[in-house]
Amino acid sequence: MDKLIFISNDDGYEAEGLKQLVEMVRELGDVFVVAPDGGRSGASMSISSHTPVQNTFILHEAGTADRGCLTVWACSGTPNDCTKMAFEKLLPRRPDVVLSGINHGDNCAVNAHYSGTMSVALEGCIKHVPSIAFSSGRTDTFADFGYMKEWVLKVVRMVLAEGLPKEVCLNVNVPDVEPLKGVRICKMGMGDWHEEWQERDHPRGGKYYWIAGYYAPFDKHDEATDTWAFEHGYVAVTPLQLDMTAYGTMAHLREVLR
Amino acid sequence: MDKLIFISNDDGYEAEGLKQLVEMVRELGDVFVVAPDGGRSGASMSISSHTPVQNTFILHEAGTADRGCLTVWACSGTPNDCTKMAFEKLLPRRPDVVLSGINHGDNCAVNAHYSGTMSVALEGCIKHVPSIAFSSGRTDTFADFGYMKEWVLKVVRMVLAEGLPKEVCLNVNVPDVEPLKGVRICKMGMGDWHEEWQERDHPRGGKYYWIAGYYAPFDKHDEATDTWAFEHGYVAVTPLQLDMTAYGTMAHLREVLR
Repeated sequence: MDKLIFISNDDGYEAEGLKQLVEMVRELGDVFVVAPDGGRSGASMSISSHTPVQNTFILHEAGTADRGCLTVWACSGTPNDCTKMAFEKLLPRRPDVVLSGINHGDNCAVNAHYSGTMSVALEGCIKHVPSIAFSSGRTDTFADFGYMKEWVLKVVRMVLAEGLPKEVCLNVNVPDVEPLKGVRICKMGMGDWHEEWQERDHPRGGKYYWIAGYYAPFDKHDEATDTWAFEHGYVAVTPLQLDMTAYGTMAHLREVLR
Repeated sequence: MDKLIFISNDDGYEAEGLKQLVEMVRELGDVFVVAPDGGRSGASMSISSHTPVQNTFILHEAGTADRGCLTVWACSGTPNDCTKMAFEKLLPRRPDVVLSGINHGDNCAVNAHYSGTMSVALEGCIKHVPSIAFSSGRTDTFADFGYMKEWVLKVVRMVLAEGLPKEVCLNVNVPDVEPLKGVRICKMGMGDWHEEWQERDHPRGGKYYWIAGYYAPFDKHDEATDTWAFEHGYVAVTPLQLDMTAYGTMAHLREVLR
């Protein structure tokens, strides 16, 4: 088939979310996966500066008339390493689209900054390939993501047909709601985490901590945010740009900093 | 002293860049460091989802009439973990400013996305404390960062006096040039990396890879970018906002995705 779809994630190549995303989109083209060899939640855009990275070939399945072929590699690095590795060392050619997910858990609002799922789309975007991250409100290991297939295909088809503006990618968050109420094009919500560390006693003395906590939006009632759309049963599509410049502050900064 | 300055970095608590930043700003207030126990370059906003995190008390030095006291903790996690740990578990109170660095190496342009140095400032920003990341073009382990002290103090003093807009932080990149030509308030440059993987033969067969390569700006001649300012001998101050929403694309997306 003529379209080449690159897929990675942050839950690892064996995760249900990735496997189900692969099966959903094989009707649109050939699928090439390079995904972490295990869980990498919260990896953000990190790269493996301090450890070497290895790749393991997992499988190749031939395509049929109406389903693309499938190639899967596992990589010992971060989600971002997977994307960089795929583009330079593994993909047969530049892909037509970069997909990430389906993440078991949402990446709404500022949480996109921490997200390994999002990093795959951001890296695709740096490389000027239209890129989409998919996350679901369904968090369990064996979740069935079939309820969101219609929306996954709608978004991927639109992007394959239209492309995306340069240096813009999509953060798609689908709540655990059936039926879904429709789609909303959103802005990134703002908020912060609380009670972020759970303390444990080390058996040989001292304390250690697991990162945890709960997310509290600052803008819970702002209907323009992805947080609001997600909480109210809509597919939240948030276009994110690489350029984080706070243009509105520049004139004042030029006054106070000379 | 009445101001409390929180400092972290991604090169670790023993790095020269951090030690010299601490000494530069002690005249402005008490300094509290929680920094990684080793190098974490390229950590981005990552958090330790899959490993527990431990803290080690390193030192406390009393202050004098004109120099704040200094407290240092090392943390086994990422730079972002350090910031989150500091705010919830270690700092005696909310700091007046969050500083990161001085990074041994610049974090201009889209490289801010990969940067552990930048993540400290972004996390401070999420927590609504004025935050500044400092990076230098001097990359060697024993670099002397004294040449940039005047600018570090100027920027920190301005931020302590004026604050920063909510959800905006500063990415300050100082080239390895004496004398510095002045300051420019910049936008984030765009670009991508090339030849990102160096291949090595594993002694027991197969290949492994180190991340490497060179950065090529797409906008080398755009005088508004931090890349240009840095390359031309100016202190590049880039205000970055948490909100990555590509507002300009929303109307069109609403047309094509229903």
